[in-house]
Amino acid sequence: MKLLKVLSAGALLSLSLTTYGAVDGEVAFTFNTFAFLLWGALVMWMCAGFTMLEAGSVRTKNASVICMKNIGLYSIAGLMYYMIGYNIMYGDGNAWFGTLDFGFSSSSAEIALFNGDEGATIDAVLAEQSHSNMSMWFFQMVFVATTASIISGTLAERVRLISFFAFVVVLTGLLYPLIGKWTWGGGWLAELGFVDFAGSTIVHSTGGWAALAGTLIVGARTGKFREDGTAKATPPSNVPIVTLGVFILWLGWFGFNGGSQLALGSGFDAISMGIILVNTNLAAAAGCVIAIAISRPILGRTDLFAALNGAIGGLVAITAAPNFVEHIWAIPVGAIGGAVCVLGMRFLDFLKVDDVVGAISAHLFAGIWGTLAAVFTVGANFLTQLIGIGAIGATVFIVSFAVWSLINLVFRARITAKVEQLGQDVAELGIEAYPEFVIVPEEDLMPDSDR
Amino acid sequence: MKLLKVLSAGALLSLSLTTYGAVDGEVAFTFNTFAFLLWGALVMWMCAGFTMLEAGSVRTKNASVICMKNIGLYSIAGLMYYMIGYNIMYGDGNAWFGTLDFGFSSSSAEIALFNGDEGATIDAVLAEQSHSNMSMWFFQMVFVATTASIISGTLAERVRLISFFAFVVVLTGLLYPLIGKWTWGGGWLAELGFVDFAGSTIVHSTGGWAALAGTLIVGARTGKFREDGTAKATPPSNVPIVTLGVFILWLGWFGFNGGSQLALGSGFDAISMGIILVNTNLAAAAGCVIAIAISRPILGRTDLFAALNGAIGGLVAITAAPNFVEHIWAIPVGAIGGAVCVLGMRFLDFLKVDDVVGAISAHLFAGIWGTLAAVFTVGANFLTQLIGIGAIGATVFIVSFAVWSLINLVFRARITAKVEQLGQDVAELGIEAYPEFVIVPEEDLMPDSDR
Amino acid sequence: MKLLKVLSAGALLSLSLTTYGAVDGEVAFTFNTFAFLLWGALVMWMCAGFTMLEAGSVRTKNASVICMKNIGLYSIAGLMYYMIGYNIMYGDGNAWFGTLDFGFSSSSAEIALFNGDEGATIDAVLAEQSHSNMSMWFFQMVFVATTASIISGTLAERVRLISFFAFVVVLTGLLYPLIGKWTWGGGWLAELGFVDFAGSTIVHSTGGWAALAGTLIVGARTGKFREDGTAKATPPSNVPIVTLGVFILWLGWFGFNGGSQLALGSGFDAISMGIILVNTNLAAAAGCVIAIAISRPILGRTDLFAALNGAIGGLVAITAAPNFVEHIWAIPVGAIGGAVCVLGMRFLDFLKVDDVVGAISAHLFAGIWGTLAAVFTVGANFLTQLIGIGAIGATVFIVSFAVWSLINLVFRARITAKVEQLGQDVAELGIEAYPEFVIVPEEDLMPDSDR
Repeated sequence: MKLLKVLSAGALLSLSLTTYGAVDGEVAFTFNTFAFLLWGALVMWMCAGFTMLEAGSVRTKNASVICMKNIGLYSIAGLMYYMIGYNIMYGDGNAWFGTLDFGFSSSSAEIALFNGDEGATIDAVLAEQSHSNMSMWFFQMVFVATTASIISGTLAERVRLISFFAFVVVLTGLLYPLIGKWTWGGGWLAELGFVDFAGSTIVHSTGGWAALAGTLIVGARTGKFREDGTAKATPPSNVPIVTLGVFILWLGWFGFNGGSQLALGSGFDAISMGIILVNTNLAAAAGCVIAIAISRPILGRTDLFAALNGAIGGLVAITAAPNFVEHIWAIPVGAIGGAVCVLGMRFLDFLKVDDVVGAISAHLFAGIWGTLAAVFTVGANFLTQLIGIGAIGATVFIVSFAVWSLINLVFRARITAKVEQLGQDVAELGIEAYPEFVIVPEEDLMPDSDR
Repeated sequence: MKLLKVLSAGALLSLSLTTYGAVDGEVAFTFNTFAFLLWGALVMWMCAGFTMLEAGSVRTKNASVICMKNIGLYSIAGLMYYMIGYNIMYGDGNAWFGTLDFGFSSSSAEIALFNGDEGATIDAVLAEQSHSNMSMWFFQMVFVATTASIISGTLAERVRLISFFAFVVVLTGLLYPLIGKWTWGGGWLAELGFVDFAGSTIVHSTGGWAALAGTLIVGARTGKFREDGTAKATPPSNVPIVTLGVFILWLGWFGFNGGSQLALGSGFDAISMGIILVNTNLAAAAGCVIAIAISRPILGRTDLFAALNGAIGGLVAITAAPNFVEHIWAIPVGAIGGAVCVLGMRFLDFLKVDDVVGAISAHLFAGIWGTLAAVFTVGANFLTQLIGIGAIGATVFIVSFAVWSLINLVFRARITAKVEQLGQDVAELGIEAYPEFVIVPEEDLMPDSDR
Repeated sequence: MKLLKVLSAGALLSLSLTTYGAVDGEVAFTFNTFAFLLWGALVMWMCAGFTMLEAGSVRTKNASVICMKNIGLYSIAGLMYYMIGYNIMYGDGNAWFGTLDFGFSSSSAEIALFNGDEGATIDAVLAEQSHSNMSMWFFQMVFVATTASIISGTLAERVRLISFFAFVVVLTGLLYPLIGKWTWGGGWLAELGFVDFAGSTIVHSTGGWAALAGTLIVGARTGKFREDGTAKATPPSNVPIVTLGVFILWLGWFGFNGGSQLALGSGFDAISMGIILVNTNLAAAAGCVIAIAISRPILGRTDLFAALNGAIGGLVAITAAPNFVEHIWAIPVGAIGGAVCVLGMRFLDFLKVDDVVGAISAHLFAGIWGTLAAVFTVGANFLTQLIGIGAIGATVFIVSFAVWSLINLVFRARITAKVEQLGQDVAELGIEAYPEFVIVPEEDLMPDSDR
């Protein structure tokens, strides 16, 4: 038996199908499958969003390598999750770990139906599961890539390409599936009642913790923190594509949260999906507006990057539990998510943690907030939420730290000072991002404090 | 009772469900809801399209502030329409105004179904409405943002950020819902038989009239019109993202028009949606081709911006009535829309109205044409169409003019000459769009007349 | 009777509907139609992907004209395919050619249903076809545009705008529909058993052959090949948008392959669609990873363009037969597709064929490989596959060569040396792509061999 995200909508799904069973089995099967595929395609699209956000946020000399990292991580994630990840996450196994089987196939019932072997086949398919096996795989696969994308942003401009790819292999093949098993794979956190509908903690905090561990090993960019302890602003190289990236993420998030209903085969599921999209949008809007509002007192200017990150903070925050009917609560959940994100960026500067795009703030800090907010919005148990946040956070951080350390020994995690000065595009890839545009010498770029 | 766009497909919907009732109620409910959510997500994506179109069209020094305006307006629109707008537009009220209730919630039947209270619940849901309440809200919400995006383009490079946001608050919370009530909310224009399927007038002309009012208050950009009365060309800063923006809009328009069928729960609705997408695409293609064809005699060169705006003009024109079966007529409707748009841009230059991206031409002029074209394509009443165009146009223009005037008193609508010279990015936001690229001094930018 | 892609899933479709007929006819009709429309919209989006890929790959001075070509070709394709193309491809006719009727209309049954003429109507619709007529047209139309986009990339930077448009008229109105008729229109290749599920040969190789013929007429860019026979690298002007373009293509390919199931109205179709998306993604991922892996030994650096083209090569390769259940085979199919693409680019350099974006390599070479790979993955007949590849290839190449020759006589296919030096943007369009950015003089652009 395939396990779904049992404590999110998964549990309710079977209820709805049995209780209101007005929808014919094969029709429900088709709806469920189509929803996985379409929403999954939108989540895949989020990779393009992260790429644009990051490529526009780094300096010109490091933008091509961001593109390479992102197209590469999505490819690696898809292959690793196919080869071993999915089975670790959704294989039967025990409460802590699925199975170590290789590959993932269409179910025998699917194959029989595909080959035209009718009779009992259709019954077998519908009895076994309520959606196409591979559509579920597809939807889960695109989530893995999201986790990896978060890390790429934080560590931009100084992590070696090969080291980054090595970490992605471990993250998408082992680490994410492991902690995913605990909740969505029906493991011990699921049994405890941990609520994380679409992954405020499981996806976003995981990415954030792994990024934090990475930045401790890799260190800050040269010159990011001045001798007096203040952080130097590093202006983005291409603001319109950063904005495009955020719009892509916002759009993709409808698939991320809406698809996490994991079904569409009943009026209940349709209603729930509508509720989810509305709450998701309200939270993002509130995060954006509050970030604009507080950016002037906190950052000294009406800050576009605060606005963009605020929207992401709102999206991350609502992700743990977007499926509640009192929509008004989506506004404070998102607004606080946006505020946490803006304040978190200042806090990381204070700690001298160099996070190029604010990903730790937007994904880890807002993810923790969102997972706790589920206590209020959907009645999750506070202690259980803390346990989930703590167990996943500690595991991801410790394992990531160990893996980054090992990578550092084997490959060197950080580029050399020479490469950093030249830029990774020329030095690692040999392809400048904008080779024909004349670039301002670095020393002439004004820090924001002088503006 | 929730009112749909009664004079577009809404009225036909109930017919189809009762007449051909071959589709089970819960299945139809699911189809309708899913269509709202997916097409709605594509319409949301149009905001990214407007952002790219505008950010690439303005000069480099004003591109970041365009990004801020667009991410901000989408957020504000979502919150305002949630808090008061939707109820003004779809609340019972009278023929002119809905209700002034705060917020918008899942229906009681939805909540009951959501909470697993079966029995009569499912019947109640299906009796009350044919789709999830919140999915309908989501779809209507994304339309509001479109209206606001139009204004951002026209007023680029000289409207103050705070003034723009202030106008968006009024537009999305009050003005658009008010005039929307008259037709889609089942008000007096609906009773009169005004045809505007997806909003050539209600969305696009509304945006255009509000933009026109705004530009009269804010004035033209300094130097746009020479002393001899001719207009100076202002080259776009980033042509590829302008083009990307138009492709995004074209894609999103399938959701805009296709989703305005407001249902998918019957063979009739499916057929209608197919017809709508085909006509929409034909009109856009015809608008683009005709604009290319006439750009050389009219503008003196094979003009890319004419081509791009021509496609938008075709899209706007078909929007009033894309649901007719003689597809061949979509070609003249779109072609004339494209031509109107190109000629309109010249006309505005002649009137010394400064419309940075040609939005008034593409959305207002082509919107009027499209609303009139519905007389030929779907047999709308000519006088009624004129009344609708006139009543909405006069209301939007007068109210917008008053609001812009008030905003001008309170905040100043226009940036100072100093800010205009420096660019809004540096002066208002402190974030340049492309800080590392060396920029050509403004006086060295050749006007197109010299090319 | 409308013919479907009879030898891909089309044939199976009717099987599934009759065999497992658990899904009500009108519900199946709605699913099928909605799938055509949504997946078709994603395929339309691929045009934006090609535009970004190409506009970022060419030099700055030729980027605007790429935008013009792509928005124009999509418009022309839509009109030509409406006016004559679809009937040539899907009209009854004979095994080689459909009909030369003008235009394409809703079926009479659709019109009757649309007009509310119930009774026998619904039965007529469901008997005649299993989806909305126009939704099928929409889906096929977006495929035409893809074919044309491929050519735009190869011939960039030296083909005249009007000559390119003239070729697009012939390609989308006549040539593609003609060879499409042979397989998808139920012609002689279909009868022979040629397998090309979503168009590795019919779409992608066709584009590649037409591009190859074009480049032989138009010639290489001035200076592309040095006197010693080596090829000069021509750095892309905007790497992030090239990457964005590839992400768009990847996303759109889910629609391209998934939608080519041509139905969603049964559990079988849903399962098949899930399988298709998974195989498509695995192939692309494998193509990307292998291209990165072999780029260092072959190209001397970890090459981003190899990675991006490798992903496309993998996508093209899987397109001929993505619907097999042993997903593991998608990895070698895609990996070899990626490798073929990278090696092909070197091979073309060796042959002194100037293909600006590597389109011949990615679409033609990988397309041939993918069509042959169907022998292993779905048991296609090797000889039949060769016949299909050969017949379509020879026809497209010969006709294209003749058409390009004729165009060369009438319009001159190639821009003048003066225009080439100035750039097409200034000389043909009068709109620079990035007029405010200071550009590096061409002689200062380092060739990659010096890096």
